[in-house]
Amino acid sequence: MELHGGQIIGGERSALSGEVFHGVDPSSGEQLNPAYFEATADEIDQALRLAESVFDEFRKTTPGQRGAFLDAIADETEALGDELLKRASAETGHPLPRCAMERDRAVNQARLFAGFVREGSWVDARIDLGDSGRIPMPKPDVRSLMQPVGPIAIFGASNFPIAISVLGADTISAFACGCPVVIKAHPAHPGTCEIAAQAVIAAALKTGMPAGLFSMVHGKGNAVGEELVRHPATAAAAFTGSLGGGRSLFETASNRPIPIPFYAEMGSVNPIFVLPGALAERGEEIAGEFVGSLTMGVGQFCTNPGLVLGLKSEQWDNFSKSAAEKVGEFVPQTMLHAGIHHAFTSGVEERKKSSDLHLVGESSRAASVEKSEAACYLFETNAEGLAANPELAEELFGPVSTLVKCSEPSDMEAFAKTLSGSLTASVHGTEKDLEEYAGLISVLEKKAGRLIFNGYPVGLEVCHSIHHGGPYPATCHSYFTSIGTRCIQRFVRPVCFQDWPQSALPPELKDENPLEVLRILDGEYTRDAV
Amino acid sequence: MELHGGQIIGGERSALSGEVFHGVDPSSGEQLNPAYFEATADEIDQALRLAESVFDEFRKTTPGQRGAFLDAIADETEALGDELLKRASAETGHPLPRCAMERDRAVNQARLFAGFVREGSWVDARIDLGDSGRIPMPKPDVRSLMQPVGPIAIFGASNFPIAISVLGADTISAFACGCPVVIKAHPAHPGTCEIAAQAVIAAALKTGMPAGLFSMVHGKGNAVGEELVRHPATAAAAFTGSLGGGRSLFETASNRPIPIPFYAEMGSVNPIFVLPGALAERGEEIAGEFVGSLTMGVGQFCTNPGLVLGLKSEQWDNFSKSAAEKVGEFVPQTMLHAGIHHAFTSGVEERKKSSDLHLVGESSRAASVEKSEAACYLFETNAEGLAANPELAEELFGPVSTLVKCSEPSDMEAFAKTLSGSLTASVHGTEKDLEEYAGLISVLEKKAGRLIFNGYPVGLEVCHSIHHGGPYPATCHSYFTSIGTRCIQRFVRPVCFQDWPQSALPPELKDENPLEVLRILDGEYTRDAV
Repeated sequence: MELHGGQIIGGERSALSGEVFHGVDPSSGEQLNPAYFEATADEIDQALRLAESVFDEFRKTTPGQRGAFLDAIADETEALGDELLKRASAETGHPLPRCAMERDRAVNQARLFAGFVREGSWVDARIDLGDSGRIPMPKPDVRSLMQPVGPIAIFGASNFPIAISVLGADTISAFACGCPVVIKAHPAHPGTCEIAAQAVIAAALKTGMPAGLFSMVHGKGNAVGEELVRHPATAAAAFTGSLGGGRSLFETASNRPIPIPFYAEMGSVNPIFVLPGALAERGEEIAGEFVGSLTMGVGQFCTNPGLVLGLKSEQWDNFSKSAAEKVGEFVPQTMLHAGIHHAFTSGVEERKKSSDLHLVGESSRAASVEKSEAACYLFETNAEGLAANPELAEELFGPVSTLVKCSEPSDMEAFAKTLSGSLTASVHGTEKDLEEYAGLISVLEKKAGRLIFNGYPVGLEVCHSIHHGGPYPATCHSYFTSIGTRCIQRFVRPVCFQDWPQSALPPELKDENPLEVLRILDGEYTRDAV
Repeated sequence: MELHGGQIIGGERSALSGEVFHGVDPSSGEQLNPAYFEATADEIDQALRLAESVFDEFRKTTPGQRGAFLDAIADETEALGDELLKRASAETGHPLPRCAMERDRAVNQARLFAGFVREGSWVDARIDLGDSGRIPMPKPDVRSLMQPVGPIAIFGASNFPIAISVLGADTISAFACGCPVVIKAHPAHPGTCEIAAQAVIAAALKTGMPAGLFSMVHGKGNAVGEELVRHPATAAAAFTGSLGGGRSLFETASNRPIPIPFYAEMGSVNPIFVLPGALAERGEEIAGEFVGSLTMGVGQFCTNPGLVLGLKSEQWDNFSKSAAEKVGEFVPQTMLHAGIHHAFTSGVEERKKSSDLHLVGESSRAASVEKSEAACYLFETNAEGLAANPELAEELFGPVSTLVKCSEPSDMEAFAKTLSGSLTASVHGTEKDLEEYAGLISVLEKKAGRLIFNGYPVGLEVCHSIHHGGPYPATCHSYFTSIGTRCIQRFVRPVCFQDWPQSALPPELKDENPLEVLRILDGEYTRDAV
């Protein structure tokens, strides 16, 4: 496939700006061709106007049509073959098998949503029948269901060039409910984005969808993103990235003349609590698995475990020693890009300077700066040290974590109370531990989006029940997830029809229930016709 | 009941401030006793700390216990008898039957939520079973459900002293899911709030709920509200009131170090479209009903119809004449308070000055300023006049509306496209009209939360399917409603449990499904056990 480097505006190419940038191979620093053109304000406006202009056509497609479109995206993604994987690998340093795993996840996700939208009950159809004879006032016939909100601006993640980018859950869930998409290609993997976009364009063509439902613009700095969020046609935005970037765009979105929801997933510290029973039973095993989780993908996951807490004991010391040894064995690997590499190494240097922190483990092989390689680092502190260094409870993106040796069981609960919102919290324990630490668990339920027992946060199951979200700063709005079928809720709102004629009602609200969706009919869940 | 005028902090009274204000009878300007004490920052802090301290106990109550609590609120509200109604009438100018209607609505609403929370499926329980043998990665067991977020700050409406105030859907839905409440009593009906609060306190006592789940603070200006929204223990806020007040608190909430959702219902213009078929068939009838809807409750509804559009014709002229005559018959009535009365009369004076507007109808009896009475006013303009006066498409709270005589059918659709988000849009028509004006309807679906056919927006059915919300400025987030059972979604978030032991799971996620809630189990809706 020949890459052209321009914006894609409803299938048309546009490159009006004189400003360009390149994708870069982080393992060599080499610029990759072609040059990518910064989107101009006109191009962004064109993309959003086009999205707005096809919104009616798109939102009125049937669930079956949208299901076919999503299945076609899955098929076309598979048809891209190795070209997608190779480019993703070149732009991110991810090994090819990781890229293949991401591609498979994206494909499965599109098919999951295809089935979900075909089944159709997600629209939350509700009917309360009227009663013209009710005293003192006649009761109207009231029906409602979820409808799409309009064009969605999407910002993919740097760390998942395939699975949380052009083909990610943001795009797929927006399409599933009938919202057009304008995505800002991630400037660290613009070529991967351009290749992936072809799958969307081909799928739209194959299934008779309006081309304008998908546009992609490029931008290296913040200007293009700001413009997307400010544009009056943008109805909502979804973002996966850093706290700084997310917060800034959230403020732009909230302070617009007409505010829009900004759904940001901004990562978190993902603490692991190793309770005494588990530590005694299998401390060494946990140490090894924890380091495996910490170093997977060079630690570049928003669910990367940044803190591990346990009780002072001989077992803890063994755990710490084991984990440190495993860290020593980690062979430095290339990070996503030089910027992330720089932030990681500066963050680690800061931690090394702290007198409250002890570096207990470090990759024995040195990392190459030229190759943007990260070594793995493991620090240790105690509850006082953690309290004195609140930045430890903030995410540092990369393969670094801190062990916290607590003097008292109550230290863990006390720390949990000070924890900021987190995507996950993991607990290793026996069932007896869970009982004894019920107070800690109760606190974690209020702090995290996902609680994991005897497991690790990295490696997210894409399914109906998954929640990838949590209280701020994990996300900007803890009701919404960015992964899993519930994420469709970000791009819809209820529309209510009162005494509306059958002929003009959406199918899900018609008496006969032609799509056989589950509805709340006068308070009862049923698929029956009225 | 003796009123004391202080804050109510978990059942205890507190009056630390030297600053006081009074409720006022708007029909006489007379101050009503007792004096109400402005809440101090300490009192607000105390209320929220207390709410936070009982959150765990409250959120862990069973649905049955919370159902009993809500039913007890209904019973205790009824037991307040005439005292509640009389005070509400004195503080708002609402006639007693209106107050009784509001009380009944509040009581029915509490019982609706009691049934809803007992049925329990609203928690959206989802289970994806694990598969340890899956290749290439074992599949974890993932389960999730909605959990309450924490203390909620509530701001009631001035116009519904009983049904959208202390006993309103905000309080009831927060309690239904297990969130403590700190409400700011509306300064225009503090006595009504104090009486209503007794029902909540008595119900909590009767059903063994922690007293700290409910506090009420007083404040005349903006300071107390700002403090409530800024407090770190506040997890979300709900507001019904003006665009100015709502927007300002929304910004406070969004710009906190840890932003919180601010759910504001800020009213709207609620256009009515009278299509040609309906105009021909029953123009006069619609005119009478429209003016009835416009003047009900002295026009003080957030769903009050502020614009009526129709096509230039003899029938339109008859419609306009009929409506103007009905407006002439409206006997001026006391508004909620002097501030609202002043805003209304100034707004009307402004409209009278516009050369694009013609005053076609006005109450024949003069209104008394001393009694804060509002006359009814009906203006007329055309599509050009409406375009030249965009403020006509903004809400003016009170019994005033503008008829818009359109030259072309396309004028209506063109206007709809410029419409801001609205709680409602009403269409009078035949089924043939609906077909011919399909373009208009399609636009309205994107602009309003509730579409009404051959009816009027005022008079909201409290039920499962109702949606009382809409795009900004109707609300700050169009996903959420402030009335109807869906409004519970404002105060919860998903919590996900991965590989969590059965013994420690919430009942709704246990294999045996002891509460028999509807769940999504491996993608299928079922009440079956695993």
